[in-house]
Amino acid sequence: MRVNLPVIGKTLGILLTINGAFLLLPLPFSFHFDEGDYSSFIYSSLINLFVGGLLILLTRKQSSKDLKRKDGFIIVTLGWITLTLFGSLPYVFSGTISDFSNIFFETMSGYTTTGATILTDIEALPKGILFWRNLTQWIGGMGIIVLVVAILPFLGIGGMQLFVAEAPGLTPEKLQPRIRETARRLWYIYFGLTISLILLLVLGGMPFYDATCNALSTVSSGGFSPMNASIGHYNSAYIEYVVTFFMFLAGVNFTMIYFGLKGNFSRFWANEEFRVYLFFTIIVALIVTAFLIIQEGFAFEQGFRIALFQVVSIITTTGFATSDFTLWSHFLTMIFFFLLFVGGSAGSTAGGIKIVRHLLLGKNTILEFKRQLHPSAIIPVRLNGKSVPREVIQNILAFIIIYFSALGIGTILLSFDDIEIGTAISAIATALGNVGPGVDELGPAGNFSKLLPFSKWVLSFCMLIGRLELITVLIIFTPYFWKRS
Amino acid sequence: MRVNLPVIGKTLGILLTINGAFLLLPLPFSFHFDEGDYSSFIYSSLINLFVGGLLILLTRKQSSKDLKRKDGFIIVTLGWITLTLFGSLPYVFSGTISDFSNIFFETMSGYTTTGATILTDIEALPKGILFWRNLTQWIGGMGIIVLVVAILPFLGIGGMQLFVAEAPGLTPEKLQPRIRETARRLWYIYFGLTISLILLLVLGGMPFYDATCNALSTVSSGGFSPMNASIGHYNSAYIEYVVTFFMFLAGVNFTMIYFGLKGNFSRFWANEEFRVYLFFTIIVALIVTAFLIIQEGFAFEQGFRIALFQVVSIITTTGFATSDFTLWSHFLTMIFFFLLFVGGSAGSTAGGIKIVRHLLLGKNTILEFKRQLHPSAIIPVRLNGKSVPREVIQNILAFIIIYFSALGIGTILLSFDDIEIGTAISAIATALGNVGPGVDELGPAGNFSKLLPFSKWVLSFCMLIGRLELITVLIIFTPYFWKRS
Repeated sequence: MRVNLPVIGKTLGILLTINGAFLLLPLPFSFHFDEGDYSSFIYSSLINLFVGGLLILLTRKQSSKDLKRKDGFIIVTLGWITLTLFGSLPYVFSGTISDFSNIFFETMSGYTTTGATILTDIEALPKGILFWRNLTQWIGGMGIIVLVVAILPFLGIGGMQLFVAEAPGLTPEKLQPRIRETARRLWYIYFGLTISLILLLVLGGMPFYDATCNALSTVSSGGFSPMNASIGHYNSAYIEYVVTFFMFLAGVNFTMIYFGLKGNFSRFWANEEFRVYLFFTIIVALIVTAFLIIQEGFAFEQGFRIALFQVVSIITTTGFATSDFTLWSHFLTMIFFFLLFVGGSAGSTAGGIKIVRHLLLGKNTILEFKRQLHPSAIIPVRLNGKSVPREVIQNILAFIIIYFSALGIGTILLSFDDIEIGTAISAIATALGNVGPGVDELGPAGNFSKLLPFSKWVLSFCMLIGRLELITVLIIFTPYFWKRS
Repeated sequence: MRVNLPVIGKTLGILLTINGAFLLLPLPFSFHFDEGDYSSFIYSSLINLFVGGLLILLTRKQSSKDLKRKDGFIIVTLGWITLTLFGSLPYVFSGTISDFSNIFFETMSGYTTTGATILTDIEALPKGILFWRNLTQWIGGMGIIVLVVAILPFLGIGGMQLFVAEAPGLTPEKLQPRIRETARRLWYIYFGLTISLILLLVLGGMPFYDATCNALSTVSSGGFSPMNASIGHYNSAYIEYVVTFFMFLAGVNFTMIYFGLKGNFSRFWANEEFRVYLFFTIIVALIVTAFLIIQEGFAFEQGFRIALFQVVSIITTTGFATSDFTLWSHFLTMIFFFLLFVGGSAGSTAGGIKIVRHLLLGKNTILEFKRQLHPSAIIPVRLNGKSVPREVIQNILAFIIIYFSALGIGTILLSFDDIEIGTAISAIATALGNVGPGVDELGPAGNFSKLLPFSKWVLSFCMLIGRLELITVLIIFTPYFWKRS
């Protein structure tokens, strides 16, 4: 195939320009706390703006009218890799993280909203750097390509290709006939949620800086925190409930939040994915609560709060912690291990496999038994009262197979490291699902610093393909992609 | 639905009668070694023959002309549970195994050709009992229902239903227009392979009793051995190569062996599943050989022989051992962990997911990328030059989803026991795949005795649904099954 180089260059240029602007945001905190990290943001920003500007200049006479499906996959994949490379500059210039495998891992974990870290003492880093670390999650949460689509008219109808390639879950529902308007509205909601959460956290006594950092990584389902003990640091039931609620919200389809804000609540109950998401979360949280009360001797409110927080945190792929579930019983550790495979709703900032895929797979599997008994009948899967096209089911099944193949291959690659099979599987699962913590030494109280550089590259790649939902990235490696059609 | 009770009763009766006859086979060894276990076989045989005869008498005037799909599922599932209960009697009467959860586990592990054991000192048991233990694997390997179909004319066209419900892999290729003839030919081949292996082992210096026992559990992909150190006990390169070759043969589609015996070897090379099976086995064995030479300092021939033996043993779901792979590096342990999910060929005695399913899934997944690029094109999966109906692919995908759901649920249930996540997953995987050993303390040198009775029941259930390829058993638990149509 012929790659549409000009459009790719132009989009990457715009993307780096936006990233360069974002890189200036940590400056007020850098100056305020005066820990000597401000120059690294200025240099990083200038490099981003310079390279971005150059790319835009070089491609300024290009239109995007002929943006093809294939171009979309390339732009999004290349875009995310470029972003990670250029977004890692503050760590490089400030010298706060050594070894490029660590820097790349931490930046990828940021943009992909994974939240896994190689830092052993987070609080030792300058506050500006930690703010940037959380800002990368915010940028990645809603998706920078969606932002590009929202801001720029030049992409025209081609924008839909990019939107589909980056947006999590199935094909997004359009809020407006024009994709640009849809993308804008999603960013407005995202921004609104962030501001609301900052205010609520400050009201609860959290310092403004901490509130901003934590809000950025909550609404993005990211999970980075400027404190070693994550949200557990603040030791406040109010803060824990507020964060739990916003983590849950971040895992809801943003289209529904949009209609909810317009007062149209019936949408929530009519949506099967939302019902399953809500009830599944509550049921699992109650099971965990019961075990915490019986096995660990927690009081009811405390047990419920801790259970709900960790369960919502893992299901929504955020990865915050207020307690270390790996210290609980085998049974509870196993529950959290399997929660790594759930994921929030489609069209939310949550990563992972996603509820709607599980729902459709489950329905299809049960119907398969019916099909065995009535081999000649055509029995479609239904969702929200409509029958789901067979192609969608086929696609989800392929997604799941690729997901578990990636899990298998990743785990084998991680076996060169000195970790148990269960721990290795959890590490790949948490990276693919963009969750953050795994189990055992890679659990909420641990970190990924001890792994071999090779393992960190493997995990970084898993985060990338997980965030872009596998096919967007992996399709580029198939021979079909490069065949002239 | 109305269940066809008379036919079910009649089939179970025949099944118990056959089992009662098999129960007399250990008697010569019991008398010869004179370890006091002969009476338990006489009692067990009489009970099987009595109950079987009674069931046949009660239903003697029934014809099976109206055997339905649903009846097939019930007969096969009930048949296997009945067989396990009545086949466990020698352990009960001889008092050689205590606790019924252990007895049931060991018997189920036998008939399903899993080969996992709760025995800590195998050689302490009477030789007659150990012969019976291996004979159960031989009975289960080709499938006792297939035997019933082969022997009995009464099932008529209904026999095909049973055959399909019990036979491993996809719908079996008919060797003869009449299913009864096909079933008979399969049993002839099975018997021939067994006799040949006994002769070859005796020629290699193995005592006749050991040769018989080991042959029974080799051709059935079972994995039980009368020796604590399994095939490693004999310390003979000749025996190891012979057993490796027969394990490999047992994992080949018996239809192809039939044509091979008729001199039609072109069938082998024309068959994609066979090619993948052969090359995958060789490649993995060579990788393991390389690591054994480099990491463990083995000499080439020794490293290759040990690698090939363990790799073939796990891929074919036999489970014999000549070395403990869990003592090797993390990487090799991980390789064997994933081999638990491979399985031999369809239509062989091997369990597991099976090569042909992996092959079709892999092809379908790669084509899914092509479908993404050409959404309107219809791109079928092809096998052996023919396009595979979409229903078959749908069915395999459902099978895989159920397989991994069962793996997940089973692992959670096993977490009440005191084992690591990786070990628990391997235990369920080895039970579902009818392999035998798992990893760590459940590896080839370990055993399942320390698990809770609850875990043993869970594993026994996994062996059963794994042997009958999930749907045959699980469909009975769906509401569709019990609806009148």
